[in-house]
Amino acid sequence: MAVPYTNCFQLPNVSSKCRLLCSSTRLSARFSPIHASLGTSEPALRLEAKNTWNFTRHRQVSTAVLVAETVECLVDPLLDSVKWDDKGLAVAIAQNVDTGAVLMQGFANREALLKTISSRKATFYSRSRSTLWTKGETSMNFINVHDIFLDCDRDSIIYLGKPDGPTCHTGAETCYYTSVDDSLKDAQVDDNRLVLTTLYSLESTISKRKEELSGSSEGKPSWTKRLLLDEKLLCSKIREEADELCRTLEENEDQSRTASEMADVLYHAMVLLARKGVKVEDVLQVLRLRFTQSGIEEKSSRKS
Amino acid sequence: MAVPYTNCFQLPNVSSKCRLLCSSTRLSARFSPIHASLGTSEPALRLEAKNTWNFTRHRQVSTAVLVAETVECLVDPLLDSVKWDDKGLAVAIAQNVDTGAVLMQGFANREALLKTISSRKATFYSRSRSTLWTKGETSMNFINVHDIFLDCDRDSIIYLGKPDGPTCHTGAETCYYTSVDDSLKDAQVDDNRLVLTTLYSLESTISKRKEELSGSSEGKPSWTKRLLLDEKLLCSKIREEADELCRTLEENEDQSRTASEMADVLYHAMVLLARKGVKVEDVLQVLRLRFTQSGIEEKSSRKS
Repeated sequence: MAVPYTNCFQLPNVSSKCRLLCSSTRLSARFSPIHASLGTSEPALRLEAKNTWNFTRHRQVSTAVLVAETVECLVDPLLDSVKWDDKGLAVAIAQNVDTGAVLMQGFANREALLKTISSRKATFYSRSRSTLWTKGETSMNFINVHDIFLDCDRDSIIYLGKPDGPTCHTGAETCYYTSVDDSLKDAQVDDNRLVLTTLYSLESTISKRKEELSGSSEGKPSWTKRLLLDEKLLCSKIREEADELCRTLEENEDQSRTASEMADVLYHAMVLLARKGVKVEDVLQVLRLRFTQSGIEEKSSRKS
Repeated sequence: MAVPYTNCFQLPNVSSKCRLLCSSTRLSARFSPIHASLGTSEPALRLEAKNTWNFTRHRQVSTAVLVAETVECLVDPLLDSVKWDDKGLAVAIAQNVDTGAVLMQGFANREALLKTISSRKATFYSRSRSTLWTKGETSMNFINVHDIFLDCDRDSIIYLGKPDGPTCHTGAETCYYTSVDDSLKDAQVDDNRLVLTTLYSLESTISKRKEELSGSSEGKPSWTKRLLLDEKLLCSKIREEADELCRTLEENEDQSRTASEMADVLYHAMVLLARKGVKVEDVLQVLRLRFTQSGIEEKSSRKS
């Protein structure tokens, strides 16, 4: 589909060379060859890259030249729109696409952002070494970028992606494991409590209860431990809570009741996940892979 | 409980005045009066503040002086440990404690971090106005800080908190709503696709399907729409998926099967939440309030 260039890219400062290129090849932005160079594992993007390749072959234009020129055409105005500071930098935050964990924060310059866009590996500018560095280039724990976001001021960037492994050079999952509150309250702070949002904080608590099962037990075990120890009890609770959640709809109960019952479902199901050694992140990855492929709807439709 | 000062705070550069203060009052770090000035809504912290107040009254020491001096004693070494840049700043990222959403990013100087610690409202240093500013001081949409984390290099800070309302000055939930991929792919990018991690991206998709129900429908409705339209079907699916999740434990199925069934439970339960107008964030807030009070275990224990 041909798209007038004026609709092809909304950012300012588009060069006349770029206008000519887009016009002469009738390139739709939807078939931007930029994705041909992404090395992405996303099927949708692979398909897009293939389409692009076929499209450009059909036009009998040198693919390499076209890709390079079109990337320049589309990306340059975007890079121009970022408010780089007086050192040519912007803050770049890497965030786990599934869990939302902030993995690390560095700085990007124009080249680092461009490299991240084209390679889909989170890339930063090292202020101490005055060089680009791609997270994972030595550890192989790359952060595979799914999308990139700019903030309202265009001086802060989020690399939203999936890490191959621990992000921190210390081997920790993220670089944020020093709690100020712990430091101010606790005599024996061990500096290793990762910043965890609600779901993962609960997961961590359940996981600790599981670890404690192998130690000596004193007094009445906690409810979580009882569930972990008693498969029958756990499964009966999950079925019961799912039923109670449904009844908030069937019996037209109020929203707070629904939220409360859903919390029960989540908690008990998470105990089962812990029992099976499955992480919430694994579940979210399944969901992401499904719903980006419209898979949930297809699968569920087949089953019903 | 008396705690030797050397165990009271692990950071360096503790002044002799501070050592004397902690020693003479036998202040436990657990009963640090810092929390007396927090204005926190957390019951545990309110209790702690009350204990502190009683403690200091018992010691017949001027509370105001003690609080001020002990804050200085405990916080100064922490503030000293931050690697402020050549302008005295560090990156400060505000993150939603329940959803994990990165709300905004600013910079903090020593005073901004101190004010955040004491007020529990995310506070930054405005580089353009050369002044402190507390997010929400004009909009009243404060970010209520639950904990603060430093990264491994101690030059990046996360304010983990609960926002009172939208964070962005535009009224958007977060400041990150410009997708680079959208900008590079789509002719008509509308600049308002919030950065959403997997769970919230799915929630957003379900919500869109719900909105579409009020429009004209063509062809076979999607599975999500069918579930939204058919209460009986939806509830039967939730009960069925909960049962299948349990059977992965009862029948010793593999981990990938557990993750898959849990994904089914989550998706179908989220359709029910959408139908009832309940946000995942509301559910997570319920969980947070419960498990910080050991509420889940108590409540579940009573019910069983």
